[in-house]
Amino acid sequence: MNLNPEILLALETIVGTSYIFTDEATRKNYGHDETEDLSFPPQVVVKPANTFEVSEILKVSNKYKIPTVPIGARTGLSGGALAIYGGIGISMERFNKIIEIDERNLQITTEPGVITQVLREAVAEKGLLYPVDPSSMGSCWIGGNIAENAGGARALKYGVTKDYVLNLEVVLPTGDIIWTGANTLKNSTGYNLTQLMVGSEGTLGIVTKAVLKLIPQNNYNVLLLVPFVKAEEACEAVSAIFRAGIIPSALEFMERDAIDWTLKFVDGVNVNINDNIQAHLLIEVDGNYPEILMQEAEKILHVVEQFEIDEVLFADTDEQKNALWKLRRAVGEAVKSNSIYKEVDTVVPRYELPKLLKGIKEIGNKYGFQSVCYGHAGDGNLHVNIIKGEMTDDNWQTQVPQGIREIFELTIGLKGTLSGEHGIGLVQKNYMDIAFSKVHLELMERIKAIFDPNNVLNPGKIFPDEE
Amino acid sequence: MNLNPEILLALETIVGTSYIFTDEATRKNYGHDETEDLSFPPQVVVKPANTFEVSEILKVSNKYKIPTVPIGARTGLSGGALAIYGGIGISMERFNKIIEIDERNLQITTEPGVITQVLREAVAEKGLLYPVDPSSMGSCWIGGNIAENAGGARALKYGVTKDYVLNLEVVLPTGDIIWTGANTLKNSTGYNLTQLMVGSEGTLGIVTKAVLKLIPQNNYNVLLLVPFVKAEEACEAVSAIFRAGIIPSALEFMERDAIDWTLKFVDGVNVNINDNIQAHLLIEVDGNYPEILMQEAEKILHVVEQFEIDEVLFADTDEQKNALWKLRRAVGEAVKSNSIYKEVDTVVPRYELPKLLKGIKEIGNKYGFQSVCYGHAGDGNLHVNIIKGEMTDDNWQTQVPQGIREIFELTIGLKGTLSGEHGIGLVQKNYMDIAFSKVHLELMERIKAIFDPNNVLNPGKIFPDEE
Repeated sequence: MNLNPEILLALETIVGTSYIFTDEATRKNYGHDETEDLSFPPQVVVKPANTFEVSEILKVSNKYKIPTVPIGARTGLSGGALAIYGGIGISMERFNKIIEIDERNLQITTEPGVITQVLREAVAEKGLLYPVDPSSMGSCWIGGNIAENAGGARALKYGVTKDYVLNLEVVLPTGDIIWTGANTLKNSTGYNLTQLMVGSEGTLGIVTKAVLKLIPQNNYNVLLLVPFVKAEEACEAVSAIFRAGIIPSALEFMERDAIDWTLKFVDGVNVNINDNIQAHLLIEVDGNYPEILMQEAEKILHVVEQFEIDEVLFADTDEQKNALWKLRRAVGEAVKSNSIYKEVDTVVPRYELPKLLKGIKEIGNKYGFQSVCYGHAGDGNLHVNIIKGEMTDDNWQTQVPQGIREIFELTIGLKGTLSGEHGIGLVQKNYMDIAFSKVHLELMERIKAIFDPNNVLNPGKIFPDEE
Repeated sequence: MNLNPEILLALETIVGTSYIFTDEATRKNYGHDETEDLSFPPQVVVKPANTFEVSEILKVSNKYKIPTVPIGARTGLSGGALAIYGGIGISMERFNKIIEIDERNLQITTEPGVITQVLREAVAEKGLLYPVDPSSMGSCWIGGNIAENAGGARALKYGVTKDYVLNLEVVLPTGDIIWTGANTLKNSTGYNLTQLMVGSEGTLGIVTKAVLKLIPQNNYNVLLLVPFVKAEEACEAVSAIFRAGIIPSALEFMERDAIDWTLKFVDGVNVNINDNIQAHLLIEVDGNYPEILMQEAEKILHVVEQFEIDEVLFADTDEQKNALWKLRRAVGEAVKSNSIYKEVDTVVPRYELPKLLKGIKEIGNKYGFQSVCYGHAGDGNLHVNIIKGEMTDDNWQTQVPQGIREIFELTIGLKGTLSGEHGIGLVQKNYMDIAFSKVHLELMERIKAIFDPNNVLNPGKIFPDEE
């Protein structure tokens, strides 16, 4: 792809001289996310200021048939925002304003480049809650959360990003601008393009404004860390807690290795773990009535005591709670800092977790890789970090993809799927045939084609390579 | 359209002699729903037994290019299941089995022809809740709820049908069969065809199995009936209750006329209403802790007492509660039994309800029609029944559609939309241009075309007639 001076001039005319970059440092900086060590710099980076400029850029992309990728916080875990064919990278960093917090209707209208935690804190000041909390919420953006349908620790009680998106202003790949829906809680008016856009990984349009649902803030919570002698029993306890009639606000699983590595990685967190402990559950309940939460915590204790566990850590100060959450949120980064890795984002119905965990370990033994597992056990979402460690490059390239394929075949067999919250993006696309029939994949590809007839917007993602 | 003997034989071969009908009585019986007094009998009614037979029927439809309509309980309020071009009517009545209630994963797998209340009662026996409760739940089917994205009284706390649909087995218009998603709470794997299917009114495929999310049953509730001197203050109170930090499980609005007519229509419900009362709110809170519910009920009382109200009726026996709900659920039928009518299903952000109500009355005055309003005020969803009464046929045909157009322009201006839970179907399709730009409508029409290249499945719905 040759971005000739005519094209660059057209782009410069749209965004202004200060917001177009072709230098190597900038291009490289916008060419990666948090997926493995991948690097795919765009040939030019533009930083539009508003919806109109995004639209004009996409008209240029169509006129010259240039691959164009919307770029957010670059915290993605499936390579969704990587400019794999070069072309134009549209950084959405200037879309960083909260437009309105509507306390009367419990809604927020925001631009997509707002950091998720910043948005959460802004609404919390008004006594409101935006409950979606990806582990990366301190750095990821709302726009990326929408693109990947991000989840997080509180999804099991409060739902994922899609459950909070009411309406989106979207620049379609053609440059046309639409609002996908209405600012209402209910909507039976035509096809649900809002939900089609959520999780479409920047392939069907670029979100330029989002209207999100808010709920009243909960004032209290209780946090328990439960050490299990057997990892599979920790998984079994997950389903048992729900069957006791409790919906925790978080129910997180961490394998022994995950905690050990993370304790070395983060400062200021002290947890003593006996040698015989294989896994932990971090369990939170929240609400407005402390006495009810204590009742629920006791019910949870009663459930977990039916398994082989060590002493339960009951976090009752903010300091203790923050330390435990810091530990949990750092697991991903800690595990990855140890070795070259590949991550998969398996999800199954929650009762099937023990089978999934057991199967993953067996597949690892068969193909000779170690895996560290952790994640949102409450909704059956287990992140599997496959560690290169001492494995040869050759085995890493040939054996591991085969092992991943078997892991996904296992999740599909358990009525789960490939990705719970990270998306397919680049790195999982060639496994899509496991989850979908040819007819089904073609249907999705044809949807892509009607939104994006010239295939300019984020091409080469989600769909498997041609054989 | 001529259904020649060759076509009828092909259909008979698929479903068997006992399940194909061409007699006038049967055709007429399958040619209406609850929308006005419309009647559009299909030319032939078939009653397939399973997914394979539905698929084979649609292959015949494609081969001979025959309009084909899936028919459910015929309780629809927008004419979505009417065979407006004749052709084949596929009654889904033999898909009436609950396949599995999975207590370990809090999911139910069901066929679409199960009555919503039957499904709710079946899961309640296991201590579980399927919280979606359309007013017609005693007769409507889950399949129709999915087709129209049905809501109901509890949607403001628990969400609508789309929030409970995890996965669908669908026969596409071409006859191909897919499962749209996975049986998981989280899913970031390709485009969300599950949510595209929900609310698509039987135009993109025929649902043959559905996996729905369940939640633990709540054991207690408290119900209040609050009479307001001013109808607009009743609407204002709706938003005030939420701002007090309470999420009621139901918050229903009924105009004076709605209650008066309904009291005459139903037996065994006694409510004394002072002459100066213009509207009522029916307010429910639910949960597992009765003492908390009493606290919330007191908070609600505190909020509504800031408005001009009459004595609040506090329902504390099951008998009283059932009577009040019977009253509320019968409103639609009662109002309609009085006169020829047209119904619109407006929805706006809830704080805008007073403006919506005021505007509807002004538009009625302008065009000379009476309207009776009631509905799910908690989520801004107001059903407007326009009453023919003494209006001339000529005015009914010419003035009322213009008035409806103005009502919809008002809802759009308030950032609402055309339908909250009834769908667009046949009767609202020519108002779609108010809500959507040409580009947006064309995008939806192209989605329809890739699912249904021969336009055989439920043609003539949702999209406006060509000009």
